[in-house]
Amino acid sequence: MIIHDITVPISNRLFVWPGDRPVSLGRISKLEEGAESNVSALSLSVHTGTHVDAPAHFIAGGGTVEGLPLEVLVGPAALVEIPAEVRLITAEVLEQVDLPAGTERVLFKTWNSTFWPELEDHFRTDYVGLDESTARWLVARGVKLVGIDYLSVSSYAHTTSTHLALLQAGVVLLEGLDLSKVRAGEYELFCLPLKLLGSDGAPARVVLIER
Amino acid sequence: MIIHDITVPISNRLFVWPGDRPVSLGRISKLEEGAESNVSALSLSVHTGTHVDAPAHFIAGGGTVEGLPLEVLVGPAALVEIPAEVRLITAEVLEQVDLPAGTERVLFKTWNSTFWPELEDHFRTDYVGLDESTARWLVARGVKLVGIDYLSVSSYAHTTSTHLALLQAGVVLLEGLDLSKVRAGEYELFCLPLKLLGSDGAPARVVLIER
Repeated sequence: MIIHDITVPISNRLFVWPGDRPVSLGRISKLEEGAESNVSALSLSVHTGTHVDAPAHFIAGGGTVEGLPLEVLVGPAALVEIPAEVRLITAEVLEQVDLPAGTERVLFKTWNSTFWPELEDHFRTDYVGLDESTARWLVARGVKLVGIDYLSVSSYAHTTSTHLALLQAGVVLLEGLDLSKVRAGEYELFCLPLKLLGSDGAPARVVLIER
Repeated sequence: MIIHDITVPISNRLFVWPGDRPVSLGRISKLEEGAESNVSALSLSVHTGTHVDAPAHFIAGGGTVEGLPLEVLVGPAALVEIPAEVRLITAEVLEQVDLPAGTERVLFKTWNSTFWPELEDHFRTDYVGLDESTARWLVARGVKLVGIDYLSVSSYAHTTSTHLALLQAGVVLLEGLDLSKVRAGEYELFCLPLKLLGSDGAPARVVLIER
């Protein structure tokens, strides 16, 4: 069994979505100052780094993150590589992709994966994402979880319409993946977000299992 | 495949270790106030609720949480039930337990599990934990991960000595589990803590898989 960690590390230098709270991670109790133990504290937006979106992110009164079904967060997933020259994933692009029939979880590796190996310290708007047509295409085919290798599944110009099309259909969104070191193929996904009561999202640790 | 969630939910009413930063979870951007989306922020001690300890928690210069090996955090685990009348898990208590040979991951379900179904809003010191003799017993038998159903693997009176004996041996500590709804037996453990750079611990989502 090989475990691939596809999670972005969280630190004070990790960029966040414009306007989101920056990460603050640091020791507030220190052995060297006579404390019994070292204890760190963390403050962040729940949409930081590798994270999931719950329906409540874009839908007033929508479901929150503790209600996302583990039966969707865990299970077989197809990791699909989108050619690096593609800058917007449309339904037409997906028609060219060899998505196995019955795929319920799909992770898109795109041009974005070239951003991650050396983390840039600022947010960029030219990342690759889905538009609304792609969202509807995936919903129609029974996909229940969509993952991507930047902070949003939707391209910057299509944020609300794409999120709504997916979240209204109950699709779980998994964003901020580091897919730079994994190849296209079939894996077992374990996406385990923090169990935050009433939250619109949660940071997660995510691994792909290759058996 | 059955997925058992053994994670305690994180909310503002969850008690923390005395002196630790309290949980603060709330929406800082709201659809109802005209924002593009709902966005929550989270602030907490990294030793809140269900979490792991890294060596740096008690050892100056010790390893931090991003270095905990996924090969230890994931794999077969024995869930052992300690009789509810036991208030301190000593090496003598463990001699009575039927721990399968070669067990590398062990989770202790104790009297503490009666605390979780209805979360109490304050910390208590009379919880069941291990003493140093038990820590050494487990290390000698090659155990690499120890979990328990309250905020510390060590009893309140033995905090530093027990933690040191385990952390110096590189044992991963998994604390704050809700084991109230799972039975003793063999499972596949997926313990996925947040990937926090340089931290002495991290909150985690933890599941047991029954195949």
